[in-house]
Amino acid sequence: MRLGFIGLGAMGRPMAVNLLRANYPVKVWARNQTVVQALVEEGAESVASARELADVDVLFSMLSDDTAVRDLLLDGGILAGMRRESIHVNMATVSLRFARELASAHAERGIGYVAAPVLGRTDVAAAGKLNILAAGADDAIGRVQPLLDILGQRTWHFGTLPERANAVKIAANFSIACALEAMGESFALVRAQGIDAANFLDLLVNTLFAGAPVYKGYGAMIAQQRFEPAGFKLPLGLKDVQLAMQAAEEAHLPLPFASILRDNLLDAIAQGDAELDWSAVAKVAARRGGLT
Amino acid sequence: MRLGFIGLGAMGRPMAVNLLRANYPVKVWARNQTVVQALVEEGAESVASARELADVDVLFSMLSDDTAVRDLLLDGGILAGMRRESIHVNMATVSLRFARELASAHAERGIGYVAAPVLGRTDVAAAGKLNILAAGADDAIGRVQPLLDILGQRTWHFGTLPERANAVKIAANFSIACALEAMGESFALVRAQGIDAANFLDLLVNTLFAGAPVYKGYGAMIAQQRFEPAGFKLPLGLKDVQLAMQAAEEAHLPLPFASILRDNLLDAIAQGDAELDWSAVAKVAARRGGLT
Amino acid sequence: MRLGFIGLGAMGRPMAVNLLRANYPVKVWARNQTVVQALVEEGAESVASARELADVDVLFSMLSDDTAVRDLLLDGGILAGMRRESIHVNMATVSLRFARELASAHAERGIGYVAAPVLGRTDVAAAGKLNILAAGADDAIGRVQPLLDILGQRTWHFGTLPERANAVKIAANFSIACALEAMGESFALVRAQGIDAANFLDLLVNTLFAGAPVYKGYGAMIAQQRFEPAGFKLPLGLKDVQLAMQAAEEAHLPLPFASILRDNLLDAIAQGDAELDWSAVAKVAARRGGLT
Amino acid sequence: MRLGFIGLGAMGRPMAVNLLRANYPVKVWARNQTVVQALVEEGAESVASARELADVDVLFSMLSDDTAVRDLLLDGGILAGMRRESIHVNMATVSLRFARELASAHAERGIGYVAAPVLGRTDVAAAGKLNILAAGADDAIGRVQPLLDILGQRTWHFGTLPERANAVKIAANFSIACALEAMGESFALVRAQGIDAANFLDLLVNTLFAGAPVYKGYGAMIAQQRFEPAGFKLPLGLKDVQLAMQAAEEAHLPLPFASILRDNLLDAIAQGDAELDWSAVAKVAARRGGLT
Repeated sequence: MRLGFIGLGAMGRPMAVNLLRANYPVKVWARNQTVVQALVEEGAESVASARELADVDVLFSMLSDDTAVRDLLLDGGILAGMRRESIHVNMATVSLRFARELASAHAERGIGYVAAPVLGRTDVAAAGKLNILAAGADDAIGRVQPLLDILGQRTWHFGTLPERANAVKIAANFSIACALEAMGESFALVRAQGIDAANFLDLLVNTLFAGAPVYKGYGAMIAQQRFEPAGFKLPLGLKDVQLAMQAAEEAHLPLPFASILRDNLLDAIAQGDAELDWSAVAKVAARRGGLT
Repeated sequence: MRLGFIGLGAMGRPMAVNLLRANYPVKVWARNQTVVQALVEEGAESVASARELADVDVLFSMLSDDTAVRDLLLDGGILAGMRRESIHVNMATVSLRFARELASAHAERGIGYVAAPVLGRTDVAAAGKLNILAAGADDAIGRVQPLLDILGQRTWHFGTLPERANAVKIAANFSIACALEAMGESFALVRAQGIDAANFLDLLVNTLFAGAPVYKGYGAMIAQQRFEPAGFKLPLGLKDVQLAMQAAEEAHLPLPFASILRDNLLDAIAQGDAELDWSAVAKVAARRGGLT
Repeated sequence: MRLGFIGLGAMGRPMAVNLLRANYPVKVWARNQTVVQALVEEGAESVASARELADVDVLFSMLSDDTAVRDLLLDGGILAGMRRESIHVNMATVSLRFARELASAHAERGIGYVAAPVLGRTDVAAAGKLNILAAGADDAIGRVQPLLDILGQRTWHFGTLPERANAVKIAANFSIACALEAMGESFALVRAQGIDAANFLDLLVNTLFAGAPVYKGYGAMIAQQRFEPAGFKLPLGLKDVQLAMQAAEEAHLPLPFASILRDNLLDAIAQGDAELDWSAVAKVAARRGGLT
Repeated sequence: MRLGFIGLGAMGRPMAVNLLRANYPVKVWARNQTVVQALVEEGAESVASARELADVDVLFSMLSDDTAVRDLLLDGGILAGMRRESIHVNMATVSLRFARELASAHAERGIGYVAAPVLGRTDVAAAGKLNILAAGADDAIGRVQPLLDILGQRTWHFGTLPERANAVKIAANFSIACALEAMGESFALVRAQGIDAANFLDLLVNTLFAGAPVYKGYGAMIAQQRFEPAGFKLPLGLKDVQLAMQAAEEAHLPLPFASILRDNLLDAIAQGDAELDWSAVAKVAARRGGLT
């Protein structure tokens, strides 16, 4: 089974490495030759153009957004070059509208299509411990499942309509964003009473939210007001909240927490915090209350 | 050490029972004689009037709100009858403003005062596994700690100013409320895409929010849209969100998530859901999006 | 017809003067003797204590809030001293809850009660051009109408339940507050595009909102970012928005614009703008967008 | 001076008629031949394809949105066919981003470009009494000013950058939307107290908002809960609020009132009110409070 991988950023690189280490042949392409060279040293085959990635059995893509996927896969001609029966596993977080367009584009060409966005950051990707949210035709998923098992600790199935995996990913990220703002506000509330946010967090992560990685990880960042290095920058968080708002809008669904988040993320960026981790949205609640 | 207990509702009763079973003498009083009688059968001493509860070493109160505490403790004369050096352990969720007034009222009379609101519902109280949020003078807390150890699995200390324990309790309940709304919105988002909310919840409680009792317990209620029997009714949730808003207001702190919650809880009550569990705030997000 | 007037602040003083200049005998009382003396020079009779104001046919009060009315009228004994058939015209902006309590307290004593809050600032009061929002028993209003005609250009009648006049006043002030925030946001929006807010305002007040005093008056303040001298300070604006929220809460009515206003007014106060006019809430929108 | 007119909807038709009645030769094109025929009877020249409209001195377009403008002017080839020195007067409400793209596209081709969105509905257009918000190069505006004077009662100038006229239009519509929601909430507030909304409106439009067409016109619709026939349907209102949010987003400007409006407009559409006038957003406030 010959593989291809495009989208060799901080997430994609360790994922491609894991496939190589499992002894799969992997073709790669990237604009950045340093990145390509590092993968070649792990055993990857470098191809001269993105289009050449079409000549594989399974193509993985881990691109940043709708635009990148459109540019490379659709406009860039990769999809047009793929054989019927080959499969594209799209791990990007894309909008629902584009997710549906992609599903149609693959179906028209008889190319298998699996939407498989993931939960987990770089270190989790490197450890092959991602949670993979998958949707698509059963046979397509079945054929790539051994590969997904290399990349992740568990694959969660959300049916045969690929866009549903994207909807779940969008809703999951929105859930994280809500927890960030909830912590931002409640930590500001206790700080305003002279209480150390770390003590309050200690209570939360040992009682109400015991064990929850989101509260534990982001909670420490917010309690300590340490928003660098950024695991996921504020503007990316804004993008994801907007994906939730767009998905909801199609269904005429108001999402008032998302509206607050959007406004607060814009506020944070306007104050110059675009380079910080998106948990820095918590600074907005504190600043608006005059807390330093 | 002679104890008294007032506020023998669903939470207070099992707590008083636990103190009795640890062989402490406990005086009790309640308007409802059935409740009193049940405790007398556990070994409690029934007193003829609330004022007679003043004649103890440590008085516990587990009343519903500011008004109940004011009526019984201040206006009802219990505090006036307590001896210097005796201690009042107030486990109610009260407003910050009233919390400070109570602290002063005790200090003026030389009565020890420990604010000790709790996390946990009736079953947790019965099991003696509450999490107790305590604040007050070190010696007062020290003297009642063996009693708190009977009632709870752990006591969290928040310093010597009693109102801080109330602030933490208010912020903790606000954190729960935020999670309820976050789930209400994100579940509506996935449902609008044809995805079963239970499948999405299954993902959340095994990944991002793994282990968190709030997500697990309330999440199941929201996913199944089963809001009865009510563990904590909607109007009580509204009251607690308002306590957060009042506490924040003193510090001139905007809490936009709290504002959304207040509006949505009012909406839910206006639609006739006042008897449901406060997690039924999730119905608002669904209904506003036309989901049934 | 012998009159009394209490609440001789910036609004009450010129109103009392207008009654005096219409040749009515007016008893006055205030803590501030300079204020009293100025009115005595206009012909008022100074009484030694607030209680002595009870001995009149019609008592006007123009006090600042619930607390001031309660302290003087109820707890201070004025109402207790008034004769049956005498009338109290309460021009304060009070909460609905207290408005109802006042109506009952007067009814129990057989004292006529007219709620008559006003629209208009100091200069309008001085010119006798206030708009008076009146509610109460028809005969009581009928008897004081000639007096109201001295104070205002027009009396608007809202039925026989006095609290309805207060509800209308609260809703009217809330309408103003909404216009302030709407201008704050829309002016920030055009400023962010390099457009002079004054030019945009010029359009609004000559087209969509032509003639509207609220847009014209406050619009100029916001466009010029000139929030001093304060006609109505920010914390008073916050109080009035909260009166709207409380009135709505009784009816389980969410008011999302009010929630935004409350949060933004708190934000403004937290940034140190409590001494500015409440139109300075517009600074919040600009600051959050990074506009200086 | 030979004119062209495209976008012959409810607004465009009477505008084209006014130009014809002022004895200008006007070429027209539309998919709907009934519309074209009616204008031919007024003296217009019908052309066989949209592209043929390029052969004029001044082309007016009054299209519905970005997409319609893009399809006809850019992709449809009209712009490509226009002569250097000819002028395009674009009266559509378009997004800021697209407004800038259009300005560039015209500049590259040496075609004059005036952005001239309008305030006013169909009847105002028919009366030649629109308020025209114009921006563009001085000489271009100067040349078309006599034509604008036929269409409108007044032209408001917002400088030489065409997109600024669009920004003003977007902000103006946002101001209207804010007034709709403000009325929706304040009317619900008085109705909940048993007060007739019409009486409250009567006060507003004779005092605080005296003369303002927005309050007077929409206020009557909201007070009477009469939202048909729709002058401007809910989904169009949603589109315009989103244009404001997009424009603000570029500048990282939170617009919390816009967020509320977006959520409430979605709510209204989800409840089945998409065919009603956008003032029906006021139904949301009433329904959420349980008012029928």
